[in-house]
Amino acid sequence: MAKVYLVGAGPGDPGLITVKGLELLKKADVVIYDRLGTRELLKFVRQDAELIDVGKRRGKHTIAQEKINEILVEKARTGKLVVRLKGGDPFVFGRGGEEVRALEEEGIPCEVVPGVTSAIAVPALAGIPVTDRAYSSSFSVVTGQESPTKVKPKVDYGALQAHTVVILMGVRNLPKIAGQMLKTRPPQTPVAIIERGTTSRQRVITTTLGEAVETARKEDVRPPAIIVVGEVVRLRKVQEGQDGP
Amino acid sequence: MAKVYLVGAGPGDPGLITVKGLELLKKADVVIYDRLGTRELLKFVRQDAELIDVGKRRGKHTIAQEKINEILVEKARTGKLVVRLKGGDPFVFGRGGEEVRALEEEGIPCEVVPGVTSAIAVPALAGIPVTDRAYSSSFSVVTGQESPTKVKPKVDYGALQAHTVVILMGVRNLPKIAGQMLKTRPPQTPVAIIERGTTSRQRVITTTLGEAVETARKEDVRPPAIIVVGEVVRLRKVQEGQDGP
Repeated sequence: MAKVYLVGAGPGDPGLITVKGLELLKKADVVIYDRLGTRELLKFVRQDAELIDVGKRRGKHTIAQEKINEILVEKARTGKLVVRLKGGDPFVFGRGGEEVRALEEEGIPCEVVPGVTSAIAVPALAGIPVTDRAYSSSFSVVTGQESPTKVKPKVDYGALQAHTVVILMGVRNLPKIAGQMLKTRPPQTPVAIIERGTTSRQRVITTTLGEAVETARKEDVRPPAIIVVGEVVRLRKVQEGQDGP
Repeated sequence: MAKVYLVGAGPGDPGLITVKGLELLKKADVVIYDRLGTRELLKFVRQDAELIDVGKRRGKHTIAQEKINEILVEKARTGKLVVRLKGGDPFVFGRGGEEVRALEEEGIPCEVVPGVTSAIAVPALAGIPVTDRAYSSSFSVVTGQESPTKVKPKVDYGALQAHTVVILMGVRNLPKIAGQMLKTRPPQTPVAIIERGTTSRQRVITTTLGEAVETARKEDVRPPAIIVVGEVVRLRKVQEGQDGP
């Protein structure tokens, strides 16, 4: 019976995929992958397995979502074990839901294997817990990227009144995001910008909401980066000379 | 050198711990665990390893956090490989940050191994993606439980204006939570209550914000349960006769 496994790869470190996800990856006949974050995992794929890169490169979608859905359906129909490998968790801004629906419409069962999301793990590995008994009973995760197709529902960043806000893919829109957040939060609210989180080239910059745009400009912050806003940023213990100002 | 690994166990299914987390668990000399969700993983622990249950039972903290911190420090000082195993992700309402700080204060290094959080995985495995290109560009995760020590910062559930809101441990406070949310969201907002998520006894009940309290009462919903509020609940494909009304 044809079946597709939608597997979360985790935040990048190959040790942070789930046990079940890795087992499926090792058994897979076909692996359809995207995102830089999944590359290191490809060494576990069988030598005779078919590897299909459907990755989205910066600024342009090399393969449209509809085409990815078509490939998934086509490969599943061959009866082979198909793994769709996605960075982080498949349902956190990964369009996993769309792929599940495309398969369901064709009567192909799909099993989701959740992954460790970068939204929580990247701050954690930079020393910032998204929740804390003294500082944060709630956190919001939001995309900072406007959808080119405008399908995505709009976000008012100022209305996200959780104690901690984690913004994925927000570097380009930082002026707009910070502007909206400053309407509801004081300018001295702590902010961390984590560039290339979990990699050996990780850089963590701490600043404030009022100064975030200027800091990002001066420090020449580039994607991929995750922005954390809230008091929990203070919990980060800065190792001397390791990173940031 | 003494060191403590703070390992996220994932949402309950032993296949959903990370590869690194499982490796550490297998090597550990001492495993300090809590929560029902971690039980199934204990079969991987070495026979001669020391197992310490510091679990919090419903309604009462069997062991105070300060005592847990003391045990961590004491065990780490023996130079043994200590794994602190926590359900879900250690930094999502798991007091992981407090344990890290307690160890740091004693000069004991601590490495965090993130886990798959129930806040995302439980809805996912019940067919509900927390984000979706058409329905949700943001999600909030919040605890529904008041801290008995009142250390926790207060949450206004009505102010959490993310497209999707995931409430952990919210069953007992559902009347208050729904009441606050109804001030900013229409009563027909879809709600899912996922009882005993990811286990074989999982039950998914769908209702609306206006009717959630009455539904929970009629269906006799009991903890542990995760509540999801938002349009993404509509994406759940109900398998006939599987669960819920």
